[in-house]
Amino acid sequence: MTTYSVVDLIRAKRAGQTLNSDQIRWLIRAYTDGVVADEQMSAMAMAVFFRGLDDDELSTWTTAMIESGERMKLTGLSRPTVDKHSTGGVGDKITLPLAPLVAACGAAVPQLSGRGLGHTGGTLDKMEAIAGWRADLSRDEMVAQLNTVGAVICAAGPGLAPADKKLYALRDVTGTVESIPLIASSIMSKKIAEGTDSLVLDVKTGSGAFMKTEKDARELARRLVSLGEAAGVRTTALLTRMDVPLGYACGNGIEVAEALEVLSGGGPADVVDLTVALARQMVKAAGLDDTDPADLLTSGKAMDVWRDMVRAQGGDPDAPLPVARHAQDVITPEAGVVTGIDAMSVGVAAWRLGAGRTRKEDPVQASAGVMLRVRPGDRVVAGQPVATLLTDTPDVIPSAQEALANAFTIGADFQPRDIVIDTIGY
Amino acid sequence: MTTYSVVDLIRAKRAGQTLNSDQIRWLIRAYTDGVVADEQMSAMAMAVFFRGLDDDELSTWTTAMIESGERMKLTGLSRPTVDKHSTGGVGDKITLPLAPLVAACGAAVPQLSGRGLGHTGGTLDKMEAIAGWRADLSRDEMVAQLNTVGAVICAAGPGLAPADKKLYALRDVTGTVESIPLIASSIMSKKIAEGTDSLVLDVKTGSGAFMKTEKDARELARRLVSLGEAAGVRTTALLTRMDVPLGYACGNGIEVAEALEVLSGGGPADVVDLTVALARQMVKAAGLDDTDPADLLTSGKAMDVWRDMVRAQGGDPDAPLPVARHAQDVITPEAGVVTGIDAMSVGVAAWRLGAGRTRKEDPVQASAGVMLRVRPGDRVVAGQPVATLLTDTPDVIPSAQEALANAFTIGADFQPRDIVIDTIGY
Repeated sequence: MTTYSVVDLIRAKRAGQTLNSDQIRWLIRAYTDGVVADEQMSAMAMAVFFRGLDDDELSTWTTAMIESGERMKLTGLSRPTVDKHSTGGVGDKITLPLAPLVAACGAAVPQLSGRGLGHTGGTLDKMEAIAGWRADLSRDEMVAQLNTVGAVICAAGPGLAPADKKLYALRDVTGTVESIPLIASSIMSKKIAEGTDSLVLDVKTGSGAFMKTEKDARELARRLVSLGEAAGVRTTALLTRMDVPLGYACGNGIEVAEALEVLSGGGPADVVDLTVALARQMVKAAGLDDTDPADLLTSGKAMDVWRDMVRAQGGDPDAPLPVARHAQDVITPEAGVVTGIDAMSVGVAAWRLGAGRTRKEDPVQASAGVMLRVRPGDRVVAGQPVATLLTDTPDVIPSAQEALANAFTIGADFQPRDIVIDTIGY
Repeated sequence: MTTYSVVDLIRAKRAGQTLNSDQIRWLIRAYTDGVVADEQMSAMAMAVFFRGLDDDELSTWTTAMIESGERMKLTGLSRPTVDKHSTGGVGDKITLPLAPLVAACGAAVPQLSGRGLGHTGGTLDKMEAIAGWRADLSRDEMVAQLNTVGAVICAAGPGLAPADKKLYALRDVTGTVESIPLIASSIMSKKIAEGTDSLVLDVKTGSGAFMKTEKDARELARRLVSLGEAAGVRTTALLTRMDVPLGYACGNGIEVAEALEVLSGGGPADVVDLTVALARQMVKAAGLDDTDPADLLTSGKAMDVWRDMVRAQGGDPDAPLPVARHAQDVITPEAGVVTGIDAMSVGVAAWRLGAGRTRKEDPVQASAGVMLRVRPGDRVVAGQPVATLLTDTPDVIPSAQEALANAFTIGADFQPRDIVIDTIGY
């Protein structure tokens, strides 16, 4: 393999030049091997933030990240595999009802998930509110569960795209996270390495999302789909709204409870709508077009898979969910119609209450969070509770109240909008 | 002192926001102390490359760099101090005749200099071609020599602006050198810390200079002058051409020989012109307006100071300069008028011949270099030698020839231009 001067490559990218395939493959390998130092890669990441990567550069970059580790083979399963990835939002418990629902339709759903950091929660943190449930499965356990139950939610092993792990940790401490191509390669290197046949992406936009503008979210969706298709993974992206939290519950155990409502055929309309919209795309991508997932929520078949899935990972689906020791209502001083509930503010409040973590090694409270009592469009009177703060550590309540100070907008009129803005790809 | 999140500061600069004084002072101190890691500072440097620093930010940044170390006091000298700094060029031996010349006019000239890296030579490397001469003086030796001789050329001690040393080394390996505010703060933090009363800057522009365009050079000059004035150092910048090498000699010992020609009242016109132009500004800045430096070159007074200066540092001004073991002429295949001699190509050729170094720890050859035989405006015939390559290691001659392949432009007509383009400040 040719050796390059990393300073020359940084300066070329800095000047807006295109790096060729050999240069990018060398860069990622040399960084993984420690030949390119952290301070060089962070300067490169900042140059990429400003100059971008074109489609060819991004494709090579992503392939090089995948090749830094193992590429799983999910062949030998009796069902077609289909996976979902969300770019993250507040109250986003969709994976919980979605994975068993799509498995109930006949697909194998391998949901390799993460823990939360900052204002967005992590799927594994939510599942761990269930007594006995464990996130760490061996690859054999995971494949076996896909064959028997059809759905698995578990932690990603360390062997998938180690270059991405190293680069992501670096970007996190160097202010270089918010680059669309780097976000796209990080997501897709893991998802492609995981070995799924098809993939549906939930790309969120709005105040509570990573992508604040629809333009950026569309660009991210386009690049994700293009990377997936280039790697032979049938990929679709739904562009969805994340201005208000999804559903009423923002926390860990309380989101599991809301997911159970959806699996019982009830639940908040936006959570049900998004779960069904994603499930329909996944079923289509898996080639199982004749099933309508909506029916399997009302019939209880999705709930049956959920219970099997929880039990297969040591959890007790009938165990009561943890209850917070302290609860404090948030009262609106105004009367009118709720026109907005700022997702970011609610996410920060839930985080401060103990549902999220600041550093990777922090624990989370299974019962903490914000339970909304209203949704946009609801009419309220002055003095009415609009949310309840839940925590085991009541000293944090004032800081959560502060985060929510301007979260609720009360006006005269509210125009409901569909949660799904557009479908991109496939 | 308030503590900041370095990631927040990087993101703010990345977004084009202005950092306030407390934030910048914290950043530089935290970086010097190792609280801010190299990979964070390199990302910040790249963000500064793209977003710049405004005048207030740059002034605080530079002050913080100075405060990372000691600020020398040159008070107690019987003469006014005046220093010169050049942004670097090919064949730039100006410091050698200039320091004794300005001292002969009555000023104290403390020239803290460096060694060369890459295609531009270092003043200390040139002086070390003189038998016995030593670059390392204690502060007391330096001050004593300023009082007795009036001029000193020596190595900067490690105590001046240590934050700049650390940041410059980082920028060198992370592709973040070429930022005008970072260049300005690096130069001025050292020059201000050195404690001179006044300073004249030689800001070069052209193919052999760091600033390729006059626009960038003007901007750098403006910022350097503004930093100097804000710190109470009377500062002027000359904007000068660096498209062709200065004089005929590009190397170490051969540049000393050319400097001696100038001190003897002769020498190439461009070297003499630039030496006198800078000396006039320095004499003016030092408040010694009634002396014309040009007279002290022809009278031999500048040469007398040179000899005292060399002797004071252990050198023998009468020792023969080293002679290269191998010499190889470069022949022009064309006839006509020399219209250009590309400074960068000549600099690279001299470097490859052994006059420069690639890594800090490399030795240099005292006798190696490129001796030009023509200047722009000279008429040549086909087959005429236009340069002589000098080295102790003849195996490098082909690579030097390669560097010079397109260095000489032969045409029909040449329009001479003044070496000094403009004077900025004071």
